[in-house]
Amino acid sequence: MSKTDPGNYFEDFRPGQVIDHATPRTVTAGDVALYTALYGPRFALFSSDEFARSCGLPAAPVDPLIAFHTVFGKTVADISLNAVANLGYAEGLFLAPVYPGDTLTAVSEVIGLKENSNRRTGVVHVRTTGVNQRGVAVLSYVRWVMVRKRDPAAAAPEPVVPILAEAVTARDLVVPPGLSFAKYDFALAGAAHAYEDYALGERIDHVDGMAVEEAEAQLATRLWQNTAKVHFNQFERGKEPPGRRLVYGGVVISTAKALSFNGLQNAGLVLAINGGRHVNPFFAGGTVFAWSQVLDKADLGPCGALRLRLVATQDRVCDDFPDHEDGTYPPAVILDLDYWAAVPKRG
Amino acid sequence: MSKTDPGNYFEDFRPGQVIDHATPRTVTAGDVALYTALYGPRFALFSSDEFARSCGLPAAPVDPLIAFHTVFGKTVADISLNAVANLGYAEGLFLAPVYPGDTLTAVSEVIGLKENSNRRTGVVHVRTTGVNQRGVAVLSYVRWVMVRKRDPAAAAPEPVVPILAEAVTARDLVVPPGLSFAKYDFALAGAAHAYEDYALGERIDHVDGMAVEEAEAQLATRLWQNTAKVHFNQFERGKEPPGRRLVYGGVVISTAKALSFNGLQNAGLVLAINGGRHVNPFFAGGTVFAWSQVLDKADLGPCGALRLRLVATQDRVCDDFPDHEDGTYPPAVILDLDYWAAVPKRG
Amino acid sequence: MSKTDPGNYFEDFRPGQVIDHATPRTVTAGDVALYTALYGPRFALFSSDEFARSCGLPAAPVDPLIAFHTVFGKTVADISLNAVANLGYAEGLFLAPVYPGDTLTAVSEVIGLKENSNRRTGVVHVRTTGVNQRGVAVLSYVRWVMVRKRDPAAAAPEPVVPILAEAVTARDLVVPPGLSFAKYDFALAGAAHAYEDYALGERIDHVDGMAVEEAEAQLATRLWQNTAKVHFNQFERGKEPPGRRLVYGGVVISTAKALSFNGLQNAGLVLAINGGRHVNPFFAGGTVFAWSQVLDKADLGPCGALRLRLVATQDRVCDDFPDHEDGTYPPAVILDLDYWAAVPKRG
Repeated sequence: MSKTDPGNYFEDFRPGQVIDHATPRTVTAGDVALYTALYGPRFALFSSDEFARSCGLPAAPVDPLIAFHTVFGKTVADISLNAVANLGYAEGLFLAPVYPGDTLTAVSEVIGLKENSNRRTGVVHVRTTGVNQRGVAVLSYVRWVMVRKRDPAAAAPEPVVPILAEAVTARDLVVPPGLSFAKYDFALAGAAHAYEDYALGERIDHVDGMAVEEAEAQLATRLWQNTAKVHFNQFERGKEPPGRRLVYGGVVISTAKALSFNGLQNAGLVLAINGGRHVNPFFAGGTVFAWSQVLDKADLGPCGALRLRLVATQDRVCDDFPDHEDGTYPPAVILDLDYWAAVPKRG
Repeated sequence: MSKTDPGNYFEDFRPGQVIDHATPRTVTAGDVALYTALYGPRFALFSSDEFARSCGLPAAPVDPLIAFHTVFGKTVADISLNAVANLGYAEGLFLAPVYPGDTLTAVSEVIGLKENSNRRTGVVHVRTTGVNQRGVAVLSYVRWVMVRKRDPAAAAPEPVVPILAEAVTARDLVVPPGLSFAKYDFALAGAAHAYEDYALGERIDHVDGMAVEEAEAQLATRLWQNTAKVHFNQFERGKEPPGRRLVYGGVVISTAKALSFNGLQNAGLVLAINGGRHVNPFFAGGTVFAWSQVLDKADLGPCGALRLRLVATQDRVCDDFPDHEDGTYPPAVILDLDYWAAVPKRG
Repeated sequence: MSKTDPGNYFEDFRPGQVIDHATPRTVTAGDVALYTALYGPRFALFSSDEFARSCGLPAAPVDPLIAFHTVFGKTVADISLNAVANLGYAEGLFLAPVYPGDTLTAVSEVIGLKENSNRRTGVVHVRTTGVNQRGVAVLSYVRWVMVRKRDPAAAAPEPVVPILAEAVTARDLVVPPGLSFAKYDFALAGAAHAYEDYALGERIDHVDGMAVEEAEAQLATRLWQNTAKVHFNQFERGKEPPGRRLVYGGVVISTAKALSFNGLQNAGLVLAINGGRHVNPFFAGGTVFAWSQVLDKADLGPCGALRLRLVATQDRVCDDFPDHEDGTYPPAVILDLDYWAAVPKRG
């Protein structure tokens, strides 16, 4: 039998199956530096140990998206090696901050299985949990992917489609223990905007544009040990249109998130991912722009929370807030992400 | 009112104004590794904790240019977001070494303001100071930029043009406390050249050439949270000649400095930046070459100091020391930097 | 006399000569993060401090190839600055694990010298040893290079050609002190394959392909302070065919090694390099594929060891195991490496 891992096909999954993913990964200050170099984030809480201490934390935690990418990367070999498409995210919750030195592992449970009518593919839902070296869950999220069948003729299980929350409810959000924005230095953080300043429905154009190079996309993907072939195997990708490597969707998320600093300077701490779709593929060479909308607000006690929609485009400015109409997105739109972020109250 | 930061225009500055810049930044071993990967510096003092200890320091400090880039990056959003040109540097002094784990903030004081005769722009001088987590100033420098006016018709303040020293005087140079080159291992550092071996006026061709890729330039700029749009927004830059992102001037400085190892192996510790001009724009794809000239020498007691001129070119070797004539530089010259560096005495 | 280092020519070497190389280098978690971003390795032992502890080590050591690249990089300025070709490696032994925080220096002894019949070049053999801050040798290897003579007419020394072992014998392999695979978590490591599962002669196609960009190749080379001009000076390289920078051979080794995870998930710990040849030059833009063959097996007590051949190709899949015939390699083959790796026994 071959020692090469062929990845799982649709018929390899069963409801309730629990998959312990390789490879455990110790997150370090090196990862943080690379994340900064790759995206240029300026959120003070993740940039400065001193600033984080002034907010009641022992040191600067890593950007929650670093934890997300690390855990996501581990699932690829088991869940999406034979995926045709990454369809969506839901019920993402950040449960505990991650600090340099923490070691993360990932485990997934299959919570949905449904063969497509063409019988060549099926949709797999998994709930993935990232766990640190003390056994504490640091994040949990659902994603679903369309996976090839090894054999179209193979029998399919009874369809199971999980009922997913449209959004994480505010009362389920977890504020990191000890976090206090009582002494929050708005000037040092880059803007005076507090929880009270954001209005429901408000839209913010983040103005700046960020080009993504092929080398950056590869570095950003390998950093999380995500080795999905569509991101790296140019020889194979070059054989058919579009002839290009696809940029890992997480690169678009992190690029757009870093751009969102311009207008959301104090909303860097993601608490939940309510949903997300990579609306169109993104290829290196394009310039990413982004805009945000305030969908909801919640007072969590030690801080406020904004439910935000982050929309990213390629090679198109966002001063007119390009959006879907009747569910159809313009081709320039590449990401529609729905998340909760903590934000200081003026107090 | 928009939450997006439009940056300051010429009329937003006033003499004596003090600006506390976002975002505080903890410098780490990850930054040092990236700096090494981006430029390939080989100066022993910053490369080896053991070597630094043999020179009386507690560990390897970061290259002073890392401190410079970190502090410079913080000023961009406030000072040069609407700049037409970065005109020059002066009176740069490195006041204390920076070690991994230190957190830097930056503050600038407006020390010069002068509207240009076209009334569309003006020149702003700022003195910027970088401060560590103990409140100790680690570096200070003046730079001046040409900034757009929001409204050409707006009234301009009385012109203020600071008188700047042509160079930092040797007696103002600050040798890091404890630094001793008494046990300096010249062989391990890469060359036997000591303070006594450098002659006034001596010119050194650094021979090697280093290509700079677009991805490298972007990584090197974002690492310091410098998000000036000219370096990243290819979509906008592509609309008019030269159709390219401009490489951050700091990339040229650090590339040339790393090249200068070949001939200045023991002069890595920059103590002051007397002046500097980005003589011509540099674009990715070019290969950087460099040569140096010894402008002055000073015996500082625990070490010597060389005042050096570092001239960098693109796609042109430096074996004939390309230079300006009557103040006009050949198009291949991209940098003319004047600095002081510490160098061991033979003793 | 010029301060620029011209590097050594053939006539500068003499038998028994010992060369202490600059620049000492402290290896950090930043280097590990960059190594992960550059190659995407997933071997658990180097990825997770917790996993390494479960294997009896105090923390995750760095991938032995990081130690190799670090030490190799130091030798370039003295040994191969004027080299025409890097001809081969032999008798490479990893003697002690390297951890973040360790500082490495390198020393080489000239063990072979033989002028070529054209009198313009000669072959130099050196045995290089990497040493940590406690004076402990961490690795040792022989490499030989073809070096230019400064003056073809110069007299050549008596030829000395060392007799090199065809492979390191299993009894000379050094298992890191304390290493125990008794509690090895095969699932967390990514595969169940143990020492007992590998058969002599078995061949494994590693399936995945990895493109290498110019920026990645430069970052990966500078990270180890290897500043050989063929990898960086595009201006000079562009003047004659192939008009390209040559990718550092170590990039090919590390890329192929990372690809080998798919099939050799538990054989990440390289113990020895028996031999290696960069069979054809590799240029950025190509996609690397790889296959392996089991050449030998040895039971070392606390673990097993596999002697493996790692063959890498560019822009050619390896499902038919492309190989030399009568010593002639197809043009797509770029690397043929022979090494020993530790692997857990099922016990």
